[in-house]
Order: sequence, then structure tokens, then C-alpha cells
Amino acid sequence: MKRLAHTHEADFIRRLASRLSGDGDRRLLVGIGDDTAVWKCPGRDLVLTSDAVIEGAHFLPGAEPARIGHKAVGRVLSDCAAMGAVPEALLINLIADPSHPPSWWEEVYRGANDLVTRFGAVIAGGDVSKGTPSALHVFALGTLAANPVTRAGAKAGDWLYVTGSLGGSILGRHLDFEPRIPEGRWLAEQGWATSMIDLSDGLATDLRHVLAQSGVGAILDAEAIPVSAAARSMNDGKSPLEHAITDGEDYELLFTIPGARAEAFEKAWAGEGLVTTTRIGTLTRDPDRIELREKDRTTHLMDWVGYDHLGP
Amino acid sequence: MKRLAHTHEADFIRRLASRLSGDGDRRLLVGIGDDTAVWKCPGRDLVLTSDAVIEGAHFLPGAEPARIGHKAVGRVLSDCAAMGAVPEALLINLIADPSHPPSWWEEVYRGANDLVTRFGAVIAGGDVSKGTPSALHVFALGTLAANPVTRAGAKAGDWLYVTGSLGGSILGRHLDFEPRIPEGRWLAEQGWATSMIDLSDGLATDLRHVLAQSGVGAILDAEAIPVSAAARSMNDGKSPLEHAITDGEDYELLFTIPGARAEAFEKAWAGEGLVTTTRIGTLTRDPDRIELREKDRTTHLMDWVGYDHLGP
Repeated sequence: MKRLAHTHEADFIRRLASRLSGDGDRRLLVGIGDDTAVWKCPGRDLVLTSDAVIEGAHFLPGAEPARIGHKAVGRVLSDCAAMGAVPEALLINLIADPSHPPSWWEEVYRGANDLVTRFGAVIAGGDVSKGTPSALHVFALGTLAANPVTRAGAKAGDWLYVTGSLGGSILGRHLDFEPRIPEGRWLAEQGWATSMIDLSDGLATDLRHVLAQSGVGAILDAEAIPVSAAARSMNDGKSPLEHAITDGEDYELLFTIPGARAEAFEKAWAGEGLVTTTRIGTLTRDPDRIELREKDRTTHLMDWVGYDHLGP
Repeated sequence: MKRLAHTHEADFIRRLASRLSGDGDRRLLVGIGDDTAVWKCPGRDLVLTSDAVIEGAHFLPGAEPARIGHKAVGRVLSDCAAMGAVPEALLINLIADPSHPPSWWEEVYRGANDLVTRFGAVIAGGDVSKGTPSALHVFALGTLAANPVTRAGAKAGDWLYVTGSLGGSILGRHLDFEPRIPEGRWLAEQGWATSMIDLSDGLATDLRHVLAQSGVGAILDAEAIPVSAAARSMNDGKSPLEHAITDGEDYELLFTIPGARAEAFEKAWAGEGLVTTTRIGTLTRDPDRIELREKDRTTHLMDWVGYDHLGP
């Protein structure tokens, strides 16, 4: 019998999902395998998503509590952004290690509240238990004003874009990233993006999700990838580019735009007051294959991988 | 500084809630302090609730995995029932201890899926992490076809009812209880109940929640309380009645009916094919006071308490 420790995330999720019967339900417009579920509801389609931050894995005991709260809710807000949804109501299941005093937890909740409030959302409830390690399991409900942008709509010939810059988030940005809610919403509501995902496990891994679900490949332009200042300062033997491609927790959006519309898209984006976006590559007909095009125009297979939550 | 270990659940939740600003949002029809949040959505009001089952606290490692899944989703279904809502979509955040093989977790999910499917709901997604102790954090979205039944609507003179029988769930029923979805829905949609709660922490504790939020007291009729066979077989020094009043995890509904409508209510209930319900007492004007009326008609203060999740 294979034990969980030797079973990787995708396989394990597939096994669990095989025991669920939701796929046959016509209300479930998008099921397991995208950034959020999409649920048909009278009046408006809803997105549903959940994520966890766990002490030791997603934050260290010495982190500022308000930033831990920010991160906990920011992760599900980023999932909403990746579908083009607007977050509305969140719940938090708290596992509270008694080593943190109540005032510390109050700061966690203040940080969480500050972020959701900026996007017009509300922390509406949840549950509290004592336990170790501390953890916040956060659930978000959002609404869609347009069709959701899934991972499955990319086509060969589409151009590949990311928001912001990538890599080195472990130096701090993993605790204060900005969920790209306005960007995701605009991309969905204006009908620009053919596919979208948020970068939680690193470009290398998250791009593979889009490729797998859309049945395409990609050529990444090494020179174009926006490498963050943090990635450049890591100085640990890996190149800044490798950090930008493989580090997790950027929480930027990766999305695709039809090549024929790319020029108009870039012009429209520039007028919206949104964060910077950069074209980083093109989609190809080679399923699941990622190539990296170097400065000298030579290309080679890109086999770096991002983070696997259940990896060995 | 008070440490969490010495802070009881209600106080701690109050402190966390003080950092949240959702109360001012007109979409939040029912906020923290009831069985679920109620969120105003175009087309239909939604209920949102979350709960956790944690290995060692809510189940032991040797429990049948399908029953663990049943319990995990059953708890949030029971919350939906207590508002009169119909569950629609659930998410599960899994913390998986590697000591359980994937096939064991598949059984957990099968048990969860079997229960939600019976009520027309769907497990629509979630998240998976490796960790210890194992836990399932479950989130549910439900819809309301009538006004929600909160904890705050009980009036002096109302009669107090419970479904099923109480006590001794630790002998097994805590893993296979039946969420009272049809009963809760019927009570809400027919407009019978003035208040409702599900019994998760024991009658003594959960009744106090209703009394506190409604500003009333109660006289319980000792002879009327439906003591379960399990409570009678506990044989641990506590009386069966004390078990029925203080044991947690009954997941029955406790609700109130105006005295003038009680006879008509009992007649209507009997025709609906629902589980047994029993009148167990009457509400009084003495806020927060619970009296127990014995067989000989003498009454005395009932100061037993149920379970406090964060108690010392």
C-alpha cells in the first residue's frame, strides 16, 4: 500500500475526488481542479474556495500577527481574482496554539479584516478550536459578473502574461502580497483572458496546470520574465531567473490573451490604472512541453519544477 | 496577559470578533453568534458555516473512516438544519497525517459524499495538506427559502422542543448522527419555530445560547427530557438525565414554538413523517435562568454545564 508520504498532491487529490459524485451535478459549473469551484445559484454564479495557513509551513511563530492574517485571507482572495470573481464573505476556522495570547490573535484578525475590507468583503464567521500547530483555514464566497476564467481555455497562439514580478517572496512578500482582484475582475468582465490562474506554487508548476487543462505547451522568453528585486537578492546559488520561475507564493496572475488581440489588450490595460503586466511567452501545440528561449534565441526544455505540497 | 488556555470560548470569540467590521455591512443578515452566517445575495439568501473534526478530539485513529467523513460533513449540515436552510455545496480542507494510507482517506471522502448526496448537496472542492493531527475543516453553503430561524427569537411563554433523544453520543452516535435537514427546513418554511439551534455542545450549553440571545429563561421538565438508550447505559456515576442534559454531540434540534400554537404544531408535525419531537419545557421571563422541574413538581436551579471547546 502506498503511504501518503510517498503520494504526490495531484495523485492524492485524484483519488479523493474519485469518491465524490459532484461532477454529475449541473449546478457545479467548475469543479475540482481549478482555482475555485463555481456554483450556479439563482440570480448569480458563485465562486467557492478554501485554503489554509499553518504555523511552521506558511508562517513562523515570530511573524507579525497582522501580516499572518493578511496572508491567510489573501490566499483565498487571490483564488477569487484568478477566476475573475469579487470576494464577498469569508469564514475562518482557527486552530489556536495557546502559546500565542488572545491579543496576538486579535492582531491576526485585524490584519485579515483590513485586507478583506479593502475589497468590499466581510469576515462573516467561522469556528475556533485549541490546538497545535496554529492554523487558519479560510473559506471565501465570491460572485461573478461574467463567465469565470478557468485554467482550461488557453489556445496555441495565445500570448502568456503575468502581473507584477516574480520570485523571492520568502524574503517578505509572501506575507504582504496584494491579491489581484481588480485585475482579475477586469480581465474576466472585459472578456480578454482565455485562461487564468494565480501563482501560488511557482510559475513552473502553475503554468503546467494551465497547459495540462488546456492541452497546449509554452515557450517562455527568459529575458522577458519579470524577476523581482527579492529574487535578485537571494544569493543562494540559484539564478534570479530560476527563483522567478520556481519560487512559490508570488500570488500574481498568469493569464493568456489571443495573439490577435494582444496589442489592443495591452493598450486597454495601460489605461485602467492596474498593476504592471508583462508578456512572458507564447502557447504552442506541444501538450505539456515548456521551452525556455534564451537571449541568444536558442531554446531548450524547461524542466524546473515548483512546489508540491505533498511531495517527498 | 491572559493566555488562551485560560480564556473560554465565548470570551475569546468576542475578542476576535471585536476586530472585524462585518456587522456594519447590510448584506450580513446574521453574523457571528448563530449556527450559521446569513448572507444576502441577489435571488436568494445564503447560509455559510464551517466546522472542523480533528483526530484525538472529534474522532480516534481507530474509528471507521467512512464514519469520520460522515461526522465531518454532518456537523455543518446540522448547522444548516438549525437555520432552516438546505445545504448545497461543501468544501473540505484536509490535513492528512501520513500514518493513514490514501485508501483510508478515500473511505473518509466516500462517507462524507454519501451523506451530503442524500440531502442533494455536493462536495465541490477544498484543499489538501500534509500534517498532524489529521483534521477535516468543512465549509458549507446553503440556501434559505424562508426567513432564517435564529437563536434570538424565543419569547417567554414559548414551549421548548427537541428532536430525537439525548445523551451518550460518545458510545457511537457522534459518528453517525442524522442531520435534521428536513425537520429544520419544515420548521422554517412553515413559520412554526421562533428560535432554533442544533445541540452540539449539550442541551445545558446550547439552551443557554438561546436564552442569552433571546433574553429569556427556561423551566425544563425532568420527566419529559427524552433520555437516549446510550445515556442510560453509560453507568459512570452520572445519572442518565445528567448525560442527556450535558453530553455534547447529539446534533438534534432544540427549538421553540409559541404556546398558543403548540397544539396545532404537534398535530402538523405528526403528519409530516419527521423524526419524533418532544416538548421538554417552557420559557420564562427570568433571563438566563434554567430551572429543572422534578417528578414531584418541585423546581430547582439547573447549573449543569455542557462542553466548552476552549475551557481549562
